[in-house]
This record gives sequence, structure tokens and C-alpha cells, in this order.
Amino acid sequence: MSSKFKNAKRIEGLDSNVWIEFTKLAADPSVVNLGQGLPDISLPMYIKEELSKIATTDSLNQYTRGFGHPSLVKALSCLYEKLYQNQINPDKEILVTVGAYGSLFNAIHGLIDEGDEVIIIVPFYDCYEPMVRMAGATPVFVPLRSKPVDGRKWSSSDWTLDPQELASKFNSKTKAIILNTPHNPLGKVYTREELQVIADLCIKYDTLCISDEVYEWLVYAGNKHLKIATFPGMWERTITIGSAGKTFSVTGWKLGWSIGPDHLIKHLQTVQQNTVYTCATPLQEALAHAFWIDIKRMDDPECYFNSLPKELELKRDRMVHLLESIGLKPIVPDGGYFIIADVSLMDADLSDMENNNEPYDYKFVKWMTKNKKLSAIPVSAFCNSETKLQFEKFVRFCFIKVVHLWQETMLLMLCSFCCILSRST
Amino acid sequence: MSSKFKNAKRIEGLDSNVWIEFTKLAADPSVVNLGQGLPDISLPMYIKEELSKIATTDSLNQYTRGFGHPSLVKALSCLYEKLYQNQINPDKEILVTVGAYGSLFNAIHGLIDEGDEVIIIVPFYDCYEPMVRMAGATPVFVPLRSKPVDGRKWSSSDWTLDPQELASKFNSKTKAIILNTPHNPLGKVYTREELQVIADLCIKYDTLCISDEVYEWLVYAGNKHLKIATFPGMWERTITIGSAGKTFSVTGWKLGWSIGPDHLIKHLQTVQQNTVYTCATPLQEALAHAFWIDIKRMDDPECYFNSLPKELELKRDRMVHLLESIGLKPIVPDGGYFIIADVSLMDADLSDMENNNEPYDYKFVKWMTKNKKLSAIPVSAFCNSETKLQFEKFVRFCFIKVVHLWQETMLLMLCSFCCILSRST
Repeated sequence: MSSKFKNAKRIEGLDSNVWIEFTKLAADPSVVNLGQGLPDISLPMYIKEELSKIATTDSLNQYTRGFGHPSLVKALSCLYEKLYQNQINPDKEILVTVGAYGSLFNAIHGLIDEGDEVIIIVPFYDCYEPMVRMAGATPVFVPLRSKPVDGRKWSSSDWTLDPQELASKFNSKTKAIILNTPHNPLGKVYTREELQVIADLCIKYDTLCISDEVYEWLVYAGNKHLKIATFPGMWERTITIGSAGKTFSVTGWKLGWSIGPDHLIKHLQTVQQNTVYTCATPLQEALAHAFWIDIKRMDDPECYFNSLPKELELKRDRMVHLLESIGLKPIVPDGGYFIIADVSLMDADLSDMENNNEPYDYKFVKWMTKNKKLSAIPVSAFCNSETKLQFEKFVRFCFIKVVHLWQETMLLMLCSFCCILSRST
Repeated sequence: MSSKFKNAKRIEGLDSNVWIEFTKLAADPSVVNLGQGLPDISLPMYIKEELSKIATTDSLNQYTRGFGHPSLVKALSCLYEKLYQNQINPDKEILVTVGAYGSLFNAIHGLIDEGDEVIIIVPFYDCYEPMVRMAGATPVFVPLRSKPVDGRKWSSSDWTLDPQELASKFNSKTKAIILNTPHNPLGKVYTREELQVIADLCIKYDTLCISDEVYEWLVYAGNKHLKIATFPGMWERTITIGSAGKTFSVTGWKLGWSIGPDHLIKHLQTVQQNTVYTCATPLQEALAHAFWIDIKRMDDPECYFNSLPKELELKRDRMVHLLESIGLKPIVPDGGYFIIADVSLMDADLSDMENNNEPYDYKFVKWMTKNKKLSAIPVSAFCNSETKLQFEKFVRFCFIKVVHLWQETMLLMLCSFCCILSRST
């Protein structure tokens, strides 16, 4: 075959993808998919109705402004001005993108050069590493580590960065750190003290911060989501990323946004205008309408920003209970809609799984999907090759799901696993 | 300001963009916008209705398959199998992207390396050059040149490539040529003989062909759109790009697709999974429905693939007549929905236009937008810096517009220009 058919060097080795592999596995309709973060709860009625109405207006099916539909950037600036307690210029400090994925890509591609170093906290949302590598930069990994829990419930807040270890990763080549709070897959919500450590290092080493805050509204009792961009000295060096998919449970709309100072956002705009140019108009208009509805009732428990986390907190607690009842030790998340649990206790017989070079959790999820008709995501997919071993006993379950389905499935699993456990003892 | 706030080198100098500049100018509601290719004709009723229905189905608002929604890639493979007279694998030989823009980006970023050369035919859709530069490659330009027309109507078919000049641009470093037929902005529809010259060179120099065919259905009487991928030896080295925006007049949906052999498409998929991951689900589902409606009636004049070019041909002829009636010499397009005309005859007084370093057509369009409330696009925006002079007397008008608006405006212009002409004689 012609050598001209070869991939460009920048994508060498970046072709495997956990979502593609495991979504294909879970496509069997008899499988209950607790893998991908794909809400199957009821959507807010008004967001569907808005799109349904807008679809019939000719002009709203045509191109709009490349950096964000005017009504949407206005709604976003109004919302985030409340949260930042500062003015946000809708045209220069906000960029609407093809999902949060698009924001991450624009930020990395617009700001990171070959030879730069980018700090990534492990485990991490899996696209961070290939995006950094595609930009020719070097990812520098630093793991979250768990404190001993001695019989207590295991919480995502038990997982922390060692400040000395984190500091040791910064140097003059460090161009950025990618932060993710609330964290996927752990569900960790970073505290003020933890964020201050990161902010201090960013300022000391003159480093950018790309802060992925797509689960910003999904924070459970006793926790508060804080924006590192509001810390002194941080606005000027931070890109904060949000998501329509996570905010309104419409992951299929593929709309996200970056917020930051003009001097950074303008570089993300340059990437956008040379990659996709603009985002879908009818979805942006419908999203703007949905935002206005909820911006006007932010103190009301009915506001989706308040009602969704309340709904999810119950689902989280039920999932914790179910996982515990089959003898697992879940890590109770303070935010997000995922829960991870150590599955090694189950002592599943994976000897006949095909690819024995895969990490334990990959084999386990494939086995579970095939034999128990339940799909999840292996946590080592969120690790670099050096830390996979540290996390390969963990599997991530999504709990933004209709209850009866997974409840029934977990009960089925319970029975099956009891058999396994009784056989193995 | 910190040096860490600077853009990545790959986007250096790529921040200016004709659409952003001229769309902003045309945003004044009193301006008739014949600039951007933004249809303001009535959309097909069924495409709007499909989206309106789909919006209310919860599951169709969630993530779908990253490389294309299953029902959409199936419809696309069914349609293009008819056109290619060959089987097309919906999963491996089609990739659904964020508009044709996304397809171009994926192809260039997935296949073109630093140091490669890419041949671009001038004038060219403006994003080709910055996309090639962002990949670190060198664009190599070759112009279309007009034959003398001696009083005849000037046609887009008078503009051709000189085969010797084209051949001189190929060498061992040539990784790809970007072809665009029907051509924007000229409206040229490449003939079989012209495409054969390009195909022969691609095969001789083992070069890829990125064929932008977004106006494939918009071809007027006496012309036929041909796909270079169907020429012997070309399928294996061609990526063909299509667009929902141009096919169904829904530019705001931002859906496009790449079709080609698995060994090339897989590299575009790798780029997509590391940049945006997937495209909007409800729009893809609605588009699939629209395709099925028209695939089933392709021989029927009511089929949108047949009815839209008929409707546009009348608009083209009316626009030609109007431009001629004010003393201009338009280049009659054989395809697409743009018409370009030499505006230098108008002898407009541009002495008070601010930026005198700009090409003539930039100043002219700004003057026309301000003084005549009519907006268009300067053709030198579709040129590299060396060929701008060759095209700076031309302006591009879009004719996928409601008639009465631009008819009235052109009449107004006619009166104004008559005054100018009488003053200047």
C-alpha cells in the first residue's frame, strides 16, 4: 500500500478509544448500559419543546455567528456573571464549541506547543492525554491517592493530591495543568484549600489552567463547587469549560463553552474558525431559551440546576447501597454522575476472556457485559500506562439512569455473584 | 503580559477570517446580505418537521455513535452506492463530521504532515489555506485562468487550469491536491477531461485527492457533476466531502461527511475522536429521515436533489440579467449558488474608505455595504497573497435568496450607479 495513505505523525498511536470499544459492546439491546454517561432519565420538557418549536423557523436552521449564537452567549454571560461575581463579555470572553470536547481541543490546540509540558491528574477523562499528545506536547501525570479509610465509607474526598508531589511536576516548561472538578470518574469535588494549592503553583510557575467543570451543577449535600478562575490571580490564566450535555442532560446536542480572558479565548477562536467554524444554530437557540428559563428561577428548587442534583443524589445513594449489598466497596462520589467500585472482591473467573494482556478491569467489564448483561467502563481507561495497574481493580458505573432497570439488573447480579462467591469459598 | 498567554505556533497569523469580518458588517438589519451562502429561501417542509418531531424523543437527544449516527450512515451509503455504482461500507467508508469544514479539517489533520506540500487551486474556499498551514504543510497554488471571451457571455467554464502549469506543481513532496467541484466562488463544474488530467497526475505522483463536492446537486442545464473518486485508480486515494447544509439548505445544522476507502477514513476517524468525538444526534436523525424521503424519489422532479437546482437556475439567470443591466460583466456559473462579477467598471469613489492597504474588492464591498446597504464577499478573500491582485476586481454575490429583496435592492443600486456613472463621464 502507498506510503501516502499513512496517517499524519501527530495522530500516531492515538486511534484506540474506550468509548468506541465499550459503546459497541453495550449496543446489544439486552445489555443494561451503565457505561457511557448517557442519561436515560426524562429530559426537562421545556428544552425539548423549545427545539421542537425552533426547528420550524427557517432562519434558525442557517449559519449563525462562528464564536457563539448571539442569544446563547448573552444567556451564558448573564449566568456566569452571577457565579463569577464579575462582568463577562459575551463576544470576547465566551466561545461556544462542539461540546466540552471541542472546548478542550480548542484550548489545547490554540495554546499548547510542541515541547510544552501539560500536567494531568490521574485518573483523568480519557481524551486529555491524546489531545495533549496530538499537540506534540508531553503529558506529565500526577495521581490522586487515597487515604486509608479503616472501615468507614470510602469517599471521593479521601482521594487527594500530595502537594509536594504535585509541586515536583511543575517547571519552566509547564505550559498548563488540566483540572477537572467535579471529577470524572472519581466524583471528587475539590475543596478551597486543594484549589488554592493548585492556584499558587500556577501563579508561581506562570502556568495556564484548563478547568473542566462540566459537572458544575452536580454536587451533593455537604459539598460546594468552586471555580478556580475566581481565585486571586487566576482569571487571567484560566479557561473554564462547561457543557450543555451535562447541564441539561442533552449529551446528544454536542454544545459546550469556554470562558476566560479575551487574551486566551481569542486563540481558541482562531482554532475554531479553522476547524469547524461554527456550531449548530437550532440547538444553540433552544439552549439559550432553556438557560433563560432557569436563570430566572435560580433560587427555586424547581430550577434544573437545583432539581437535577437532588434527583441524582437519591440515585447515588441507592447505587451505593446496591453495590455494598453485593459485597463491593464503592467510593461514594461528592459530585458528578459516576461511581467507581473495586470489583476484585468478586473473584470473577476471567480465564476464558480472549485478550489476556488487557488490564483486569477491561477483561472484567467484557465478561460482565457478556455474562451478566451489564455494561460499565474500566477505570484504567482513565489512566496513563504507568498508573493503569493502580486502578485496574476499579470499574465505573453511571447512575443518571431510570431506577427500575439498573435496580433489577443489580439484583440479578447480586444473585449471580452470591453463587460465584459461595463457589469460591 | 505573560509569554505563556501567547498562541501556539501552529495558529500564528491564522486569526483573520473573511466570514467573521463581513458577517459582522452585514449584521445591520437594513443591509441585504448577498455575502455569506446563507439560504433564505423556504426550507423543505419535511426536514423541519422531522427535527421538530425528533426533538421530543428523549433518547434522540443523547450521544450517538462517534463516527456517524447509525441511521444516517446507512442512508448515506444507500445514496452514494447509487452514485458510485459500488458498495460503500457505512461504518468504515463514511464519517459524519461537523459540517464539510469538519471533514476538511479531519482529512488535512489526519493525513498531512509538517513538510508536506498540498496543491490548492486559486481561487479557493478560504479555509483550505489556513487548515493546510495549521498542519505545518506548505500550500502550493495554481490559478484557474480565463480564456478571452470576445463579447460572448462570460462563463465559469472559460476558467481552466493550464495542464502544464498544474503538472509543474506536483513533485515527490506533494501529499494531496484539494479539488472543489462545483467550484466556489466561480461556479465552475469540472468536465471529465479536466478531471482526468488531475487524476492522471494524482496517480503519477502517488498523491491524495481531497474532493470538496458540497454543491454536488447544484448543477445547471448542460452540465453534469462528476466524482473524481469514480475514475480508475482514484477511489483508493480520494476523500470526497459532502454537506447537509448545501444538500438540504440547512447550513445551520453543521453536518457533513467524508467518503473514501477504509485505509484513509480511519485516520479521519482518529482525528474526530480526539477533537469533537461525535456530532449532534437529533440533527443526524432528522437528516437521515430527509435523505430517505428523497432517495425514494430520485427520478421525480419533486425530489429536492432535482427541484432545488431548477429553482436556483431561475435565480441565477435573473441575477445575471440584473448584473448585466447595471453594466457589469458577470461570470455565469454552471453550478453552486454564487456568481462573481467584475465591479471595477462601476468606478465607485472609494477614496474615503479607511484602510487603503486593503485590496480593491475589500474596500468596494465595505463601501457598498455602507452606502448601498448591499453586502457581498470580496473574491480576493479566496486567493493567496500572490494572486489577490488578479482577482481584486471581483465580488461574489449569493443567489440562494428570496427574489423580491435583492431584486429591489439591485434596482436601487442600478439608480445609484447610473448617477455615479453619469457623474464620472
